[in-house]
Order: sequence, then structure tokens, then C-alpha cells
Amino acid sequence: MLQENYDLMPWPKEITEKPAKFLVNSDVTISINAEDKKHRVRNAAVSFLRRLSNRTGVFLKEGFPVFNKEGSIIISFDNVAQLNVNNNESYTLEVNDSSIIIKAKTDVGAIRGLATLLQLTKNDTTDYYFPGIYIDDTPRFVWRGLMIDVSRHFQPINVLKRNLDAMASVKMNVFHWHLTDDQGFRIESKIYPKLQEYASDGQYYTHEQIKDVVAYANNLGIRVIPEIDVPGHASALLTAYPELGSKKSFSYAIERNAGVFDPTLDPTNEKTYEFLKNLFTEIAPLFPDDYFHIGGDENEGKHWNENETIQAFKIEHGLETNHDLQTYFNIRLEKILNKLGKKLMGWDEILTPSTPTTSVIHSWRGEHEGLEQSTLIEAAQKGYQAVLSAGYYIDRMLPIEHHYTVDPIADAVLSKEERKRILGAEATMWSELVTPTTIDSRIWPRTAAIAERFWSPKDIKDVGFMKKRLKKVSFNLEELGLTHIKNRDVILRNMTNNQDISSLITLSKICEPLKVYERNKDGIEYKSYSPFVLFADACVVDAEDAEIFNDLTSKFIDQPKKVFDVLYYLKLWANNHNTFSMVDKNPKLNPLKDLSKSLSSASQILFNSLESQALSTTDLNNLKNSLVILEQPHVDIEVVITKSLRLLTKYCETNYLK
Amino acid sequence: MLQENYDLMPWPKEITEKPAKFLVNSDVTISINAEDKKHRVRNAAVSFLRRLSNRTGVFLKEGFPVFNKEGSIIISFDNVAQLNVNNNESYTLEVNDSSIIIKAKTDVGAIRGLATLLQLTKNDTTDYYFPGIYIDDTPRFVWRGLMIDVSRHFQPINVLKRNLDAMASVKMNVFHWHLTDDQGFRIESKIYPKLQEYASDGQYYTHEQIKDVVAYANNLGIRVIPEIDVPGHASALLTAYPELGSKKSFSYAIERNAGVFDPTLDPTNEKTYEFLKNLFTEIAPLFPDDYFHIGGDENEGKHWNENETIQAFKIEHGLETNHDLQTYFNIRLEKILNKLGKKLMGWDEILTPSTPTTSVIHSWRGEHEGLEQSTLIEAAQKGYQAVLSAGYYIDRMLPIEHHYTVDPIADAVLSKEERKRILGAEATMWSELVTPTTIDSRIWPRTAAIAERFWSPKDIKDVGFMKKRLKKVSFNLEELGLTHIKNRDVILRNMTNNQDISSLITLSKICEPLKVYERNKDGIEYKSYSPFVLFADACVVDAEDAEIFNDLTSKFIDQPKKVFDVLYYLKLWANNHNTFSMVDKNPKLNPLKDLSKSLSSASQILFNSLESQALSTTDLNNLKNSLVILEQPHVDIEVVITKSLRLLTKYCETNYLK
Repeated sequence: MLQENYDLMPWPKEITEKPAKFLVNSDVTISINAEDKKHRVRNAAVSFLRRLSNRTGVFLKEGFPVFNKEGSIIISFDNVAQLNVNNNESYTLEVNDSSIIIKAKTDVGAIRGLATLLQLTKNDTTDYYFPGIYIDDTPRFVWRGLMIDVSRHFQPINVLKRNLDAMASVKMNVFHWHLTDDQGFRIESKIYPKLQEYASDGQYYTHEQIKDVVAYANNLGIRVIPEIDVPGHASALLTAYPELGSKKSFSYAIERNAGVFDPTLDPTNEKTYEFLKNLFTEIAPLFPDDYFHIGGDENEGKHWNENETIQAFKIEHGLETNHDLQTYFNIRLEKILNKLGKKLMGWDEILTPSTPTTSVIHSWRGEHEGLEQSTLIEAAQKGYQAVLSAGYYIDRMLPIEHHYTVDPIADAVLSKEERKRILGAEATMWSELVTPTTIDSRIWPRTAAIAERFWSPKDIKDVGFMKKRLKKVSFNLEELGLTHIKNRDVILRNMTNNQDISSLITLSKICEPLKVYERNKDGIEYKSYSPFVLFADACVVDAEDAEIFNDLTSKFIDQPKKVFDVLYYLKLWANNHNTFSMVDKNPKLNPLKDLSKSLSSASQILFNSLESQALSTTDLNNLKNSLVILEQPHVDIEVVITKSLRLLTKYCETNYLK
Repeated sequence: MLQENYDLMPWPKEITEKPAKFLVNSDVTISINAEDKKHRVRNAAVSFLRRLSNRTGVFLKEGFPVFNKEGSIIISFDNVAQLNVNNNESYTLEVNDSSIIIKAKTDVGAIRGLATLLQLTKNDTTDYYFPGIYIDDTPRFVWRGLMIDVSRHFQPINVLKRNLDAMASVKMNVFHWHLTDDQGFRIESKIYPKLQEYASDGQYYTHEQIKDVVAYANNLGIRVIPEIDVPGHASALLTAYPELGSKKSFSYAIERNAGVFDPTLDPTNEKTYEFLKNLFTEIAPLFPDDYFHIGGDENEGKHWNENETIQAFKIEHGLETNHDLQTYFNIRLEKILNKLGKKLMGWDEILTPSTPTTSVIHSWRGEHEGLEQSTLIEAAQKGYQAVLSAGYYIDRMLPIEHHYTVDPIADAVLSKEERKRILGAEATMWSELVTPTTIDSRIWPRTAAIAERFWSPKDIKDVGFMKKRLKKVSFNLEELGLTHIKNRDVILRNMTNNQDISSLITLSKICEPLKVYERNKDGIEYKSYSPFVLFADACVVDAEDAEIFNDLTSKFIDQPKKVFDVLYYLKLWANNHNTFSMVDKNPKLNPLKDLSKSLSSASQILFNSLESQALSTTDLNNLKNSLVILEQPHVDIEVVITKSLRLLTKYCETNYLK
């Protein structure tokens, strides 16, 4: 089957196989048959050559694109793209025996084609090669984004850059930079320097750094949308400029906990608008993009209710609710932004009857927030451009299957105009619980599959096929310096004080971090400066052994002869507590002891029972006791094989109980 | 024994144990009893709290220094240091049951004390704690440096920052930034923009980035010395400004190979001085340090000899040799630098009779370059300030024992004045063969032991004691994001296409990269863009299993009853080729096949012989054949247990041959 031959992600629109094989040897060269004014293609080509050389071990004679002759890889395109929502990112890619041809309308299309080519690399025992193929590809949505929250935990430039590289490798094209929140204001202001002095703990981006990141992204064909979250989520901002707050003589301070907080800008104070106008005027030129995100979410208006002047203002202006007052605020902001040549974008709370349709709705609330469905379709039908994030909250630590199966449009019936207003979607990486050490493993590899949802045809949705490819894509992301694989062992070495980590690796492969905000449930267990190199931080979603074992168990229940592989894992876990016990104990390991012991105990009993086809009542009771322990949350993780263990227990109880 | 209780590195001048134990719990706080104008201590304290919290898993109530009350850790100092060679970095550290007191003359001394305190962290099964202690510490040398060459392979800002963090953790205080060489000119010039446009492949530091790194280093009490290498090592510079070259109509180009090249600035051309004056005037303010390094090494003067104008100039000015001409050049440069408030520093080729004693000699040539000893002592005796790097060339991939046993002063008898002129020493990380992926494993952990040589009393020199501590220090460097441990597996995953890497890990633990420039011997096998994620790049100096096995073998030869541990390793290696063979082959693995096979074969025969106390002639011959293969270099590595295998073979041949 065609699909099984390639590990492409996102899967292209059309693939045709050809009987050809392009060998990767030292003679490979690239030429660019177009005026590459922005150097996007040249830079992508250099990066391609480095990755190809490192991946294959081939020593290339030419490390840079050649200019005076035709390369064996020939790239051509018509225009240099201005990055906006009208971009053309389509390309064709043809691999022949001795030439590879990439053609595109724009330079950005060309680099998308190069990303596909790199994913085509294959090998046998003697050679690396590209298989003969013809690909015709174009994205389904023009807005394929990743939001990174740098407020809750600051993320240094290099973290952002490597994630931009990863985004480009799966053809994402929007980096939404959530720059401010209660926990920190992360962008320098020369006009309002107290922002960085008092509201950032010294962790912020200078203008030069912002420009550097924007240029880096632009080079990869990625737009950058800044978000300055107002009027709520303003604890940090108001720490620096308390006079703009809605509650007088309130002691504003950078927030260290997680949650929704009261500090809110005063929308009835003209100085608020003066401040935002000056700030936006200063910041806007750093971000060449047309869109500017003003947040606008989760303002519960408590401080507004407590402020008599604000209440009087509402009456005076005929604003019935706090929501109306916020709309008044948004309309003022939109005028400021329009003058700066920007479209106002905000989270879906900004969607009210009086919100002008020139605003852009970023739909984040979905079923779990009490809505029947996201506001995306509604917004588009009402005339707003809209972007979807409901369903793509990767910080909820849900399996990739969950996100992959969310289709932004689903079965909605839309007119052509309405469809055009649905720009696309964004995965959101909120950072209450992630640090530079762990952020990559929270974003990747799941976001690669989400990127496919945003790029590929709607009917590419087979979960098994996606998972097979995702494994390869995940591995190849290491080439970009991503730490999602390697930092597991770093954390486990920390856990064990650099002793044998094999038992913890085994545990980590069947444990996942608590989901849907169950970790740090009330927002106060973890502060922003709490440790995040704990066992939960080493664990990832879609735990690899659990996926395999759960699958094996289903098969076994269907066909009880297929027992060997199940026994293999049970034996592995049965023995694991011995290894765990040989590591010198330290306070960080103690909370894992019960988990390790119960897993070994349950696995041993199940192993014995399945092997001997017998089960005593005593063993059954011990087994059930161990399962109860395993089913509880442990140090912020859950064991994700417990359902399978229950199934096996049931099976043994039914068939083997003496 | 006192020494065995602590993993401090560098070892302090004086330690006294006290019967006390300071528990690390959530109440730990830090206060700073001094005006911390540069925020060095505050920043170090925040970093200390983060590392302590992550290391211990303790959730601290206060994530920042406290100001309105006394902390449980009390830091005081007298003055904010100006970073220069007169700095006082001494401190005292006292750990009591419920308080820790760090006192220093300067803020930099205080942060050195905090670094020591973090290294004191210990634990039992229930708690982390600091043991009762009194330390009185001060460095032996005022100049304790690491040079990083960013020309041969560019190193991004984050690589530099994490290495600065690592330097500070072992109390190094000079970062020598080798910014230019034949392979790239890595610093922006606004006056001469062709430098970055044509001489850097786009890989250079902007002024803002330079300032950022300098500020980052300053915050850690680390001085930054820039090096602009002239008049040789100028291929890149002359690619941008060929008119300054010594050979007319020469086709200058960025060099892709390694070695010593001919392109050299023309010291007889006034425009050369005008250029350097403007460039230095532009660059110097970015580096507040008093010292400015102009390189001056390895100019073989070939292009000078070929240029008649230059030859005429020499005669005209009474300059007999090219060396004299270079001294003329250096004297001109020194005047430029002096006007900028800088001292000229250069590699020891600049040491000639007419070189003014205001210059600073950086001694790099030693025995292996044909000198009987380094020029350090000679320079000091002749009145020059001097810094030593001979003996500390970590790119030569020699065991740490080699560098650790080099004492800068050794047995030299010096006057007080002469001694004062010996400022200290620098480890040098030349980067022909290192990339951002591998540089950390080439610098660390060996440089931590070198840092001890530069800081600790001369009599701290027990190699075994150092190695024991180095292991712990190396592990703790991971907290700073250093990649020297974790990137081994990244490279091995790349080697195997993400299959089982256990057999390669086993091999990597007995293999070391070729030493003393045997890898890439003629400088042309590897170009700067060649792959550096090969097996040799996963291997490190002081291969861990080899160290253990070689030691076990020595002990066995002394006491042949001690055979178990030797057999353990032989069995591991005997079985290893089976595991290796189960990994799907790809072109990158093929060159390792003979090595893996011969190791298994030799180990199996030795295992059988030692266990059965018998050896057949056939087996002996096979064994010897395998050893011959193992003793050859393989894909840029050497197997560093071959001497031990030879010893064991000899033993079996002598005692067990039938």
C-alpha cells in the first residue's frame, strides 16, 4: 500500500509513485533558479544539506547551494512571499533517478517542498536515497499555528527558535507569542520601562531579541502574532503601573500561582487608553504581521463590580453588563490598532453583538467550558474571521488521538464566504506546568499530528497510520535540537542522583502526567518557581509501552492464545521493583515506592496466573489490592495500563480462579 | 577522611568540619546584607534557589531573596567588584544547624561562595541537607579562563551562555572569545558590514548579542576577552576586504578545511592600520575588559615572501625577518589599543625582543610544538604579564589526568614580581571538530578539573580524588542544560535510525575519539559542513567502562584471584555483537561492524580461557587476529582497552596455553 512506504507528515494532497531512486552521495547539490531576495530558500537549502549530511553520514562536496551550474536538486519559484493570510504555499516535488525538481509559486512553497523531501529520506544497508515520486501539495488552512505562553514560565530565545524550526519541519506557519499574563510581562518597553523592571523578574525579550525571533520565523515562512493580554490577566502589568488598575490601593504583585485572577485594567480611565496606545505604537512595528492579539479572555470583572466609578461609567454609557463594558474597551483598542495598520484579534469572549466584524475571533472555549460547540462556526457565520484553538489545548495532556480527530469545520455547512473566514487553527501551549526543560516534550510530537490536521485533506484521519508516521517524525525532530526525547533521562538522572535509571525508564513508559489540569488542581501547589524536574515531568502523553501493552491486551482478550507478548511485559514489570530497590533511596524517590511495588506485585501475580492458568483467592485479593493502589494518582502521574490490568484480572478470575 | 565527604570542585583552600546539619526544607530563604548594585548576588541567589529546589524536589515558599527579614542563608559582602585582574574572589562559608553564612569582600566572592554551597548538597533517605562546615577559600590564580573558538564552527548564544553558567559553577572567571579565523568572521561591524555579509555565512553575533553575552558573563563574575586574530588566520576577513591582503589578485574565500593557511594582512599597507583602528574602535566598547587579544599566531609569512613591496618595506625599515615585520605590526596595533584603553594580548609568537612589556603573552606552544617548555616563565621573567594555555588544549582529546597534572608554575623559581605577572591560565576549545551538538562533551567535564588546577592550592593534585569528584560535578552540570551527557544517545539514535542503541552505548564506553589531531589529520577529510554526528562524536575522552576495566585488569594481573569483574566485562562485550547485529543495518553502521565483531570475538575467547583456565592455539591465533583489528583506528575512534586485552592475552598464553 502506498501509504505504508512513506513517513510524511503532514501527508500531502496528492502522491504518485514513480519507478526511480535518487542516491544520496557526495555529489548532491542544490541550485535555486529564482531570485531568492529574502534568502529563505538559500537558508532552507543550507539547513537541508546539513540535516541530510548528518542524517546519512554522507560527506557532501558542496555544503552550500551552487550558483553557476544546475544542481541535482533544482528549486524554482515565481515570487517571494509577503507573509499573510493570502500566501500560496503550494509546491510540486518530483524525484527522478538523477534529479529532483521542486517547483512553487512562492519561496515559502519551495521551502515546504524541501521539508517534504527531507522526510522522504530512506535507506537500505548500503545507501541512503530518495524514492521516485511525484507530489502535488497545498494546505487546507492558511493559518496553522502554535501558541506559546512565555509568561507563566519564561522561554529563552533558543527554546523559541528550536520550536520554530520544528514548526517549519511540519509546515506550520503561525507563531502566536503569548507575551504577557499575570505571571510576567515579557516584552521590553522603552516608554514604560517599569514593565520589564517590575513585572518580569528580569525575564523578558528586548526589542532586538523580538526582531531576531521575528526574522528567524519569517525566514522559515512563519508569521508571528504578538499577544498583549488585556484587560484581565494583568497582575504583572499592574505591578508596574498600578494606577491603571480597577481597584485602588490594591497591592498588585506578579502572580506566582496558576488560575484566573482579579487584577484588571480600568476601562473607564482615559490613561489606560493612552498607555495602551503608546505601548501598542511602540510594539507594533516589531511585528510586521497584520494581526495583533489583545487577549480579552477570562475577565470575571470582580474589581469592576467593586469600583463605584466604573459602575457609574457603565450606567452613563448604557453598558448593561461587564461584558458590554469590555466590548466598549475592545472597540477603543481596535481603533488604536487599526490606525497602526493592525487587525484586532482576541479570544472568543470578545464576540458580542456590538463587536465590529473587522475583529478576529480566536475560539478557545468548547464543550468542557460549557459550550455545546466552539464559537468558530458561529463567528464565521456572523462575518468574523476566525481561528480555532478549542480541541487543540496541548497543555491538557490528552492523547494525540483526541486532538487529531478534531476537525475545525467538521460537518458544518458553510457558504464559500463563510468558509473563507475560517482561517485555520492553533495548538496552545500554556506554560503553568512547563519549563524550558520540559516544554518540548509537551509540544512534540503531538503538535506534528495537529499540524497535519491543519494542512492535509480532511479525509487523512486514520489514527493508526498517523501514529506510525508520528514516531518517525518525532525521532527526526531531534536533529533540530529538540529535547522532547533526551530530557526524559536528564530528569530521571536527577531523580536518582545519577544512579541506574532503568527502572524509572520502565515506569515512565506506562505513566502519563495527570490530565485536564488535575495536576496543580487549585493552582497553588505549584508556584512558578516550584521544581519541575519530578517524575511527572519525565513522563509524556501517549506513553509508549502503555500503548503497546493496551493493544496487546485487547488482542489477547479476543484471542487468548496470543499470550507471549503480554507475558513479556508482565515479566518486565514484575522484575522492575527489584531494580528500583537497588537504587539508593532519596527523598525524591520515596513517593514512587508504592507505585513501583504494586506494579511489580500485580504483574507477577498476573504473569503466574496467565502462565500456569491458575489463580488462588489469596492472589486475586492481593492483585486487586495492588490495582487499587495503581489506580490512584501518584505524584502527579497516572498509570495508564490499569484498565488492561483490570481486563486481564477479570480474565484470570473468570477462567483460572481455583 | 575529610576529603571523601565532599564533592567540591575546585577544592577550597581550607575546610573545617563542624557538628551541624542544615536541613533543606520549604522554609529555606536567602537574604543579602549588602547593596547589591549589579544584582550579581541576587541573580546568583535566584539561580541557586531554582537549582536547589529542582535538585532536592523541595517546594520552597520563597522563590526569591527576602528583603525585610534575615534569611536562613545570609550573604554579606563589602563591595561590588569591577571585573579585572585585581579582583578579590575570596569568601568564607559557614554552615550551622539553622543558618548558613557567606561572607566576602566582593559580590563576586559571594557568588563563588554560593557555588560552593550548592556543591555541598547531600542527602540521606529522608532529607536533603548541607553538612556543618567552615570554608575559607581564595583562588590561586586571578585568570582562570576558557577559550571558545566560534569561527571553525559557529556557536549560538545559548551554547555560550550555558557554558558560562558551567564556568561559573567551577569558579572560572575569564571567557576568551576567539571571534575570527580563516573559517569565519563572527562579529558584526557597522563600519565594515562586508565582514558579516561575506565572511560569516550569516553566522555572526550582532552588537546587541555581544552586549548580551558580556552582560550575562559579567553577572556571573566572568570577564570577556575578545580575540580578533591578525595578521594571519585572515582568510575570512580578506574574503570581505581582499584589498588588505598581502597577495594581490589572490582569490580569497572562507576556508572550509582545517589547518594553517596563507592569507595574511599586509602590514606595509597603511590602509590595514586604518581598517584595524576603525574596527577596534568600533568593537572595543562592546567589551569593557582591559585586555584585547589580537591573536598573532601561526603566520608563516608565505604571502609576505611572495610580495616584493613587502620585502622592500622590510629592508627599508631594517626588519630582518618576517617575525620582525610582525612585531612592527604588533607595535602599531598596541598603540591603537592603548589609545582605546586596552592592553594588547597575543599568542606567544608575539614575544620578540622588541615587543613592549606592556603586551600580554598568551603562551600556547609547548613540548609538542618543539619547545622545551612553554614560554610562560620566560615571558614573566622578561617583564610581561602572561597567561598559559600550553597543556590545556582540550581539543587534543587527551585524558583529564594529562591536563590536571600540568601546573602553570611547576618548579619555577620566581621573584614576587615575576610571580605576580603570571596571571593564570586558559583551557582552549578549538572547534574544527566540534559543533553545538558536541561542544559540551568536549569541554566538560574535563574543564572542571582544569578549573581546579587554576583555583585550588598547588598540592591538591591527587588524580583519583579528582576523578571521584569530577563524576559528581559532571552530573550536576546537567542542571544547567549542558548536553555533554545527553547528546551521546542523540547521536547514537541518529546512527541507528532510532533503533536499539544499547550495543552502541556499550561500544562508546570503551572507545575514545582519536587524539592529538589524528582525526582529520590533513585537515581536508572534514570540512566545516561535514557531518559531526558520527560514532566518534558520541564517544568522549576518559571512556567510562575503559577506565574501570583497565583498572580491574591491573588488579587482576597483580592478584589473579580477582577475576569476576574482569569476566563480567568480557561477557558484556562477548554478547554485544549479537545485539549490534539485531539493529537493522544502514550505511552509517557498516564501518563499526568489524570493530564490534572483533571485540566480541576477542572477549569471548578471553572469557572462555580465564574461566576454564585453558587456551588452544587456534583460539590464541583468533584472539591475536581480533586484537590486531581492535588496535587499528576505526571511523575516527580508538578502542582504549586494547592494552588490557593484550595483558590478559599474555596472561592466558603464559598460564593456560595447551
